Amino acid sequence: MFEQIIENVRKNIPLVHNITNYVTVNDVANMVLACGGSPIMADDPKEVEEITSICSALVINIGTLNERTIESMILAGKAANKCGHPVVLDPVGAGASSLRTNTVYRLLEEVRFDVIRGNLSEIKTVHAGGGKTKGVDAAAEDVINEGNLDEMVQFAKMVSTQTGAVIAITGAIDIVANKDEAFAIRNGHPMMSKITGTGCMLSAVVAAYCGANPQEILKSTAAAVSAMGYCGELAHQKVEELNEGTSSFRTYLIDAMSRLDYTLLQGGMNIENR
Amino acid sequence: MFEQIIENVRKNIPLVHNITNYVTVNDVANMVLACGGSPIMADDPKEVEEITSICSALVINIGTLNERTIESMILAGKAANKCGHPVVLDPVGAGASSLRTNTVYRLLEEVRFDVIRGNLSEIKTVHAGGGKTKGVDAAAEDVINEGNLDEMVQFAKMVSTQTGAVIAITGAIDIVANKDEAFAIRNGHPMMSKITGTGCMLSAVVAAYCGANPQEILKSTAAAVSAMGYCGELAHQKVEELNEGTSSFRTYLIDAMSRLDYTLLQGGMNIENR
Amino acid sequence: MFEQIIENVRKNIPLVHNITNYVTVNDVANMVLACGGSPIMADDPKEVEEITSICSALVINIGTLNERTIESMILAGKAANKCGHPVVLDPVGAGASSLRTNTVYRLLEEVRFDVIRGNLSEIKTVHAGGGKTKGVDAAAEDVINEGNLDEMVQFAKMVSTQTGAVIAITGAIDIVANKDEAFAIRNGHPMMSKITGTGCMLSAVVAAYCGANPQEILKSTAAAVSAMGYCGELAHQKVEELNEGTSSFRTYLIDAMSRLDYTLLQGGMNIENR
Repeated sequence: MFEQIIENVRKNIPLVHNITNYVTVNDVANMVLACGGSPIMADDPKEVEEITSICSALVINIGTLNERTIESMILAGKAANKCGHPVVLDPVGAGASSLRTNTVYRLLEEVRFDVIRGNLSEIKTVHAGGGKTKGVDAAAEDVINEGNLDEMVQFAKMVSTQTGAVIAITGAIDIVANKDEAFAIRNGHPMMSKITGTGCMLSAVVAAYCGANPQEILKSTAAAVSAMGYCGELAHQKVEELNEGTSSFRTYLIDAMSRLDYTLLQGGMNIENR
Repeated sequence: MFEQIIENVRKNIPLVHNITNYVTVNDVANMVLACGGSPIMADDPKEVEEITSICSALVINIGTLNERTIESMILAGKAANKCGHPVVLDPVGAGASSLRTNTVYRLLEEVRFDVIRGNLSEIKTVHAGGGKTKGVDAAAEDVINEGNLDEMVQFAKMVSTQTGAVIAITGAIDIVANKDEAFAIRNGHPMMSKITGTGCMLSAVVAAYCGANPQEILKSTAAAVSAMGYCGELAHQKVEELNEGTSSFRTYLIDAMSRLDYTLLQGGMNIENR
Repeated sequence: MFEQIIENVRKNIPLVHNITNYVTVNDVANMVLACGGSPIMADDPKEVEEITSICSALVINIGTLNERTIESMILAGKAANKCGHPVVLDPVGAGASSLRTNTVYRLLEEVRFDVIRGNLSEIKTVHAGGGKTKGVDAAAEDVINEGNLDEMVQFAKMVSTQTGAVIAITGAIDIVANKDEAFAIRNGHPMMSKITGTGCMLSAVVAAYCGANPQEILKSTAAAVSAMGYCGELAHQKVEELNEGTSSFRTYLIDAMSRLDYTLLQGGMNIENR
C-alpha cells in the first residue's frame, strides 16, 4: 500500500496549489519538488479558482494571513471542493490571535478539508478554541508522549469525526487518524523544531501525496508524515557526522526527500496501527 | 566581447530593482549578489518609480502577482523606460490563469521590454495567448530539442520582432534571439528544474548583466544564460560527488555563480551562433 | 555580564514578533531559532497588537514596506511600547525613497524604539534625512574605519540622545552606543555583505537578546552584534577550507549561531569599550 502511494507521487507529479505564508514558502516549493510534485503559489482572489482547478491538490496555510489572502483561501477552497481535489489545512498559530482562530473557524465552515495538520496546540484550537498556543510552536504542556498516546489517539479520532477531515497531529510522536482508524508514527528528530517550516513543508508533502492518491487520504497522510520524519532522521545523522548546525539540517532534510524512494523509506518507516 | 560583459558586471556592481514573487525572492537577491550586482526589492506603488530611477536595471516577475503589485509593475516599467534602463520581463505561469495572461498583455502594451525570458510555454503565451502552460513549468510538449531547434530559433526571432525585446527561451537547449540574430546555448543540467527559482534567478542575472552593459542587450543576455547554465553543471557535479540532493544543488548553484569569472566560464560556455 | 546575556537567551527562549520584509524573512526566522529564540511573523493590522502582546520583543523592518504593513508597524510598535517590550527598528533602505524615509520619521514619532540598527547611510537618514543611501547597501563613502571611529562614536551617541534608542551602526567596524557609553566591535567578515539579509538577521538577533534581557539593552545589543560577527568569521573560515561560495556562507552563518554558546563566543569576541 505505502509502496504504491510513494510510487504514484513520482509517477503522477501532482501539481500542488499553495496559498501559504511568505516565511517558509521557498522551502515548501522546494520540498514539493523534492517529494515528486510540482508547486504553484498563487494567492490573488482574481486567479485562485482558476489556478486550483488545474491542480491536483490545494494547501491552505494561514501562517501570514491577511484580508486579501483569507478571501483567496475561501475562494480556492470552495473551487477545489467543487473539483473534488484534496484540500489540506495548516492552521499555523491558530489560538495565537483571534484573527487566526476565527479564520480557521470560518474556513472549517465554508470549506470541506480532507486533511488538517498541525501541532497539538493548533489542533486543540481547531477542536474547541481552547488551545493555549504560544506563538506558532506548540505550548510546552501540549506534548504527545507514550503516557498520553491512547488519549491523544481518541482525541484525534474525535476531531476527525467533528471536522470530517483526516487529522495529523505532529510532535514527538505523530498521530494520523480518521474517525475509525489511527496511526502512531515514531519518525522524526527534535532538530526539526529548530528550523522554521518543517510543519509547512509537511503539509505540502501531504497535499502532494494525497493529490497523487486521492482515494487513499488516510494512508497517504501517514506515509507523508513518516517520510518527512525519516528524512529528518537522515538529515540529523548527516549534521552530526559533519558537526554542522540547523541551516545545514534544513538543506539535508530537503536533500533526503529528493532522494527518497520506497526501498529507502521502508528501512526507516515506523508506523504503528492503533 | 563576453569577457568584457562579465568584467563590467563585477566592476560596475549594477543595482537591480526587482518586483518579483515571494517564493524565490531570497534566491534571486542572493544570485544577483553572487553574479556581481546589488539587489533591491521594492513593490509599493508609492516608491517604485523613485527606486527604479536610482537603479541600473529593472526585473518584472509576475510569479505571485496581485492587484497592488501589478500597478507597481506598470509604474516602475514606465519609469525605467523613461530613464533608459534595461527592463526584463519574466512572465511566470503566463497561460495558467487569465490574470497572468492578461497582465502580461497589459505589460507588453504599456512597457517597452528589453528582454523577455521564459520557458517555451510562457513565450508561446507572450506570442499568441496560445501556450498550454501547466502551472509554472513548461508543458510536456513544449520542449526545445535538436529536432525542432531551427523552427524554435525562427519562432524566437518572430516574437522578438513582435515585441521589440530580446527573447530568451530556456529549456534543454536555450535560445536567445533578437529579430536578426540568435544564439543556441547548450549549458545547464536537468536538476535545475528540480528546484524552484532557477528561471527567476536567471532573469535577475540577465538584468544585472544588461544593467552593466546596456549597449549589449543580446550578448549580455546570452552570456547570463550560459553562465547560469554552466553554474548548474558545476553544481550538479558537486552534488553527484557528495551524494547530496536538490537543496544542496541550490546552494552550489549560487556558490558557483559567486566564484565565476570569465576564465572559468570560458572553459564551460557552449554558445552557438545560429 | 555577556555570559549571563547569552545564557538568558537559551534559557528564556524569547518569542520575537517580526514585521519584516519578504526577501530575508526565512533567514530571519531560522536565525532567531538558531540564537535561541522563537520567531513569529504576523503583519496584518487585525492581529499585530494581539500577537506582539504575547511576545518578548518586536522587530520592525521596513525592507519591503507597503501601506498595509506600515499601519501594522505603527499599531504593533505602540502595543509593544504599552507592554514594555523591547522594540528594534531596522530602517532598511531609509534614504532610498521618500516612502522609506518618511515612514522612518513617522515611526520615530509614534513609537519609542529601544534599538535602531542600520548601516551608516541608514543611520544618517535616521539622524537628518541627509544620508546618501545607494539602494539597501551603505553608500561607498559611508564607511566606518579606524580613522573616523572617534567621530562615528560621537555621532552614534548623538543619534542615541536624539532618538532615545541604543544605536547600532554596522559596517567594517560596528558601533553600539547609547548617549553615554559606546562599544566598538571588530568582529565580522566582508563576505557578510555578499549575501542578502545579514543586517535583517542581526536586527532579529538583537531583538531576541534584548527580549531575554530587557534590563540590559546596550550590552545585549553589543553581544548580539559581536556574536553575529563572530559567526560570520567562523562561516568564512569554513567556506575557505571547502572552496565554497556565498550560499554555503549563509548556511554556515546560521549553523554557527545554532552552535554558539558563551564559551565559544568568548574566544572570538572583540568588543572594545569607547
